[in-house]
Amino acid sequence: MPEGDDVADDSGSDGSRDDLTHVEDGAASMVDVGDKPESARRAVARGRLALSPASVAAIRADDVEKGDVLATARIGAIQAVKHTWETIPLCHQIPITNVDTEFALDDDALSLTVAVETTGQTGCEMEALEGVTTGLNVVFDMVKAVEKDGDGGYPTAAIEDVRVVEKTKRSLED
Amino acid sequence: MPEGDDVADDSGSDGSRDDLTHVEDGAASMVDVGDKPESARRAVARGRLALSPASVAAIRADDVEKGDVLATARIGAIQAVKHTWETIPLCHQIPITNVDTEFALDDDALSLTVAVETTGQTGCEMEALEGVTTGLNVVFDMVKAVEKDGDGGYPTAAIEDVRVVEKTKRSLED
Amino acid sequence: MPEGDDVADDSGSDGSRDDLTHVEDGAASMVDVGDKPESARRAVARGRLALSPASVAAIRADDVEKGDVLATARIGAIQAVKHTWETIPLCHQIPITNVDTEFALDDDALSLTVAVETTGQTGCEMEALEGVTTGLNVVFDMVKAVEKDGDGGYPTAAIEDVRVVEKTKRSLED
Amino acid sequence: MPEGDDVADDSGSDGSRDDLTHVEDGAASMVDVGDKPESARRAVARGRLALSPASVAAIRADDVEKGDVLATARIGAIQAVKHTWETIPLCHQIPITNVDTEFALDDDALSLTVAVETTGQTGCEMEALEGVTTGLNVVFDMVKAVEKDGDGGYPTAAIEDVRVVEKTKRSLED
Amino acid sequence: MPEGDDVADDSGSDGSRDDLTHVEDGAASMVDVGDKPESARRAVARGRLALSPASVAAIRADDVEKGDVLATARIGAIQAVKHTWETIPLCHQIPITNVDTEFALDDDALSLTVAVETTGQTGCEMEALEGVTTGLNVVFDMVKAVEKDGDGGYPTAAIEDVRVVEKTKRSLED
Amino acid sequence: MPEGDDVADDSGSDGSRDDLTHVEDGAASMVDVGDKPESARRAVARGRLALSPASVAAIRADDVEKGDVLATARIGAIQAVKHTWETIPLCHQIPITNVDTEFALDDDALSLTVAVETTGQTGCEMEALEGVTTGLNVVFDMVKAVEKDGDGGYPTAAIEDVRVVEKTKRSLED
Repeated sequence: MPEGDDVADDSGSDGSRDDLTHVEDGAASMVDVGDKPESARRAVARGRLALSPASVAAIRADDVEKGDVLATARIGAIQAVKHTWETIPLCHQIPITNVDTEFALDDDALSLTVAVETTGQTGCEMEALEGVTTGLNVVFDMVKAVEKDGDGGYPTAAIEDVRVVEKTKRSLED
Repeated sequence: MPEGDDVADDSGSDGSRDDLTHVEDGAASMVDVGDKPESARRAVARGRLALSPASVAAIRADDVEKGDVLATARIGAIQAVKHTWETIPLCHQIPITNVDTEFALDDDALSLTVAVETTGQTGCEMEALEGVTTGLNVVFDMVKAVEKDGDGGYPTAAIEDVRVVEKTKRSLED
Repeated sequence: MPEGDDVADDSGSDGSRDDLTHVEDGAASMVDVGDKPESARRAVARGRLALSPASVAAIRADDVEKGDVLATARIGAIQAVKHTWETIPLCHQIPITNVDTEFALDDDALSLTVAVETTGQTGCEMEALEGVTTGLNVVFDMVKAVEKDGDGGYPTAAIEDVRVVEKTKRSLED
Repeated sequence: MPEGDDVADDSGSDGSRDDLTHVEDGAASMVDVGDKPESARRAVARGRLALSPASVAAIRADDVEKGDVLATARIGAIQAVKHTWETIPLCHQIPITNVDTEFALDDDALSLTVAVETTGQTGCEMEALEGVTTGLNVVFDMVKAVEKDGDGGYPTAAIEDVRVVEKTKRSLED
Repeated sequence: MPEGDDVADDSGSDGSRDDLTHVEDGAASMVDVGDKPESARRAVARGRLALSPASVAAIRADDVEKGDVLATARIGAIQAVKHTWETIPLCHQIPITNVDTEFALDDDALSLTVAVETTGQTGCEMEALEGVTTGLNVVFDMVKAVEKDGDGGYPTAAIEDVRVVEKTKRSLED
Repeated sequence: MPEGDDVADDSGSDGSRDDLTHVEDGAASMVDVGDKPESARRAVARGRLALSPASVAAIRADDVEKGDVLATARIGAIQAVKHTWETIPLCHQIPITNVDTEFALDDDALSLTVAVETTGQTGCEMEALEGVTTGLNVVFDMVKAVEKDGDGGYPTAAIEDVRVVEKTKRSLED
């Protein structure tokens, strides 16, 4: 790190530190991004929530008692993207410049694609993944009364195939 | 979005996506600010809380049982400004460089003006509005024991005329 | 406070505390609710956002570029209700058992009513007020591109008449 | 809702409300749990993260540069459980009395089981699901440098089969 | 855990779990408090911040440029108490019924005592400690411009002797 | 602040503001950092937690019932660094580029050093201090069952000598 107005570490109370046992193995730490250039970065993640036909029909008809499923899930996904720096312990807080969410429905599943863009010093794939898993959990929460079987379980609903499907980076220092 | 080290979207699980029903109408989304230049921006909002004379007198005399009304409200307003990106679902998180709060008292109301400055890619009027409404709510919370009438209601206290009163932007790319 | 397994306060470092200047005047503090019985409580708050006819029409037609205004505002309001304990510095965290939001539109304004219910030891009027002001701010955020005039200002939009309109309490210890 | 010290809704500013257009269809709302008895509830969710053998080996050997993968993921999962009330927009905040996390590794995947217990008025399956998806995302974040291929993508890593595997409820009012 | 409407764990995807390596040693986990009775609990913590005489004088005279030191620190301490469940990873969220903060000044230090009360199933000593350390950090933040020496360091300011000084518990099930 | 597309403050409702009593003395406010250049800044803080030999031995042997003490404390410290902007009321949110945590154990204490780096417009010593005090509080939480004496108190455990030990700044505008 730089010179400058260094404060010498002679504050007295650490004279005996050489006797200490340092404990560092396997220590979790953030990646130092201080020397990385700022770039325009984009990451897209996608995943599916397997659902019963009854849930798919209720979502299509906007007939879910708890309210508008996709509008609620979109906002849950966007908020999850913005909160990734606190949800994932070693993530940095980066400036999110854009979030796009896209739902698709087929007969027995809903898929959610989340695209995130940033101009920060590190990528945004974790933000995209958090958007997808949280958005799908919100959908689960909205339709779980429909999914529940006679034993109180949810035999059909399952999150599947959540993965990063696109990643790009372009230097901003041309 | 940029080219670069693109990851091709051929992850296999999406072969049938063309059959899906895409669901996009009315979808909430953040505004893409990635191509906006950084500017020095300032927004000022103001609002009033109608109060009984007894509350105004108690605030003036610093004689409210719950404590210092204005000091508490100032901090509530500043924190609200900083948290706007999570309170308002589609707001971006922007770097807040300055927040000023100013209270004024007349015989039957307290007014609060909040000025916010940022160097981000989007304006800060929502931050200023959140500062005003939250600050006024904090004042309400501090004096509600004084405002309460014999039926347990608050016939006088009301937030009024909260609006953006100033907005400026200056390019940082001169 | 109770007896029991008291830890005597003789930890040594406080021998000289009698010489200290205690600083208590005007100190902000939470209300002690430890001896209050649990009750079923309900509070309703309501407020208006004055809008241009163009914004009202866009909301009615679900034709706002940023997305579904009311769905987004509802969720913003509900989240604000749940976060009141951290937004209002001296509020307690209470169990929110129900939140209802209701919008109404007339030609030049939108009104929002938020009803909150709790079984806690203190009332929930601040939660209802926070729901109303935040929900109205979310609406402002969604339509501000429509409200903006040629000078970049918002001459019409203003939050008005936010107040507690109902409060009830019923003992749970019958 | 109960009688008691009702505040009549005659605050004056609403005289014209009958003329308004009420906007309620499809409105998102929390479930009213005020009349539900408190129960001891437990929910268990489980999911898998497909990984390359290199990542599995690195986790087993505690040889991941970012630090101890499972310790970090456990804490991420526990925190996600506790934050579910704000991550999932319509969830209630319930008292979490216990969280157990269990990881298992096989040659090409890691599985995470999260068990959550509460004494609240509503179930905790969303808390368990949030614990699983967040915990798996944390593992992804820790090993993504190992998973990255020559194109900067993550062809192997995918979250699979996240579901609720157990749910119980026992009345506390015997 | 209780019987009841158990959902059998036969969801299919776990047939091979017996082959897995379970990874449990040293696993962080919350304490299960589900069977603990609710009690009225109180914990008090106290600590000191060593300061230069100039800072003490400025606090006494309410002449610190950043504003009212003690009002700001009180609110910081109260908020920290309420947020302990998320700051300390394995803490439970408990209902805080009361928080008292008390400052004392002598010639070269400020001391802060924070008393916390709860009716929850676990103690509140961590809440009291978090209140003290955060409150002292807020004071440091407010006076650091006064404390700074010619080299940009803070040779005098140090947090000292933060400890739990009182703890009581009284059963609520008489 | 800049000229530009100013919105004149003539919104009507403030005509009588000259009659108001302005209330500004001692008002808490953030420091305006809008004109400060961005710099590479680093701050290091350090502190100790006095512990009984039994706790030190349990930490060394990784034999604490609540789990891995140091892994949990590291994450608590890193999260506290990232949350300083909301914990310390007048702090700005700055981009944290790096956080390093280092523990050392001697026979009757644990010390924690936290180094924080940022490229923001203001220093990060408060972030480093928050990392240290929170990290030490997490350790306290993990070992408090070991520290507890027959009266339920913690006679030995105390946080001591928390101070800033290094501060540097290097201009990024060379």
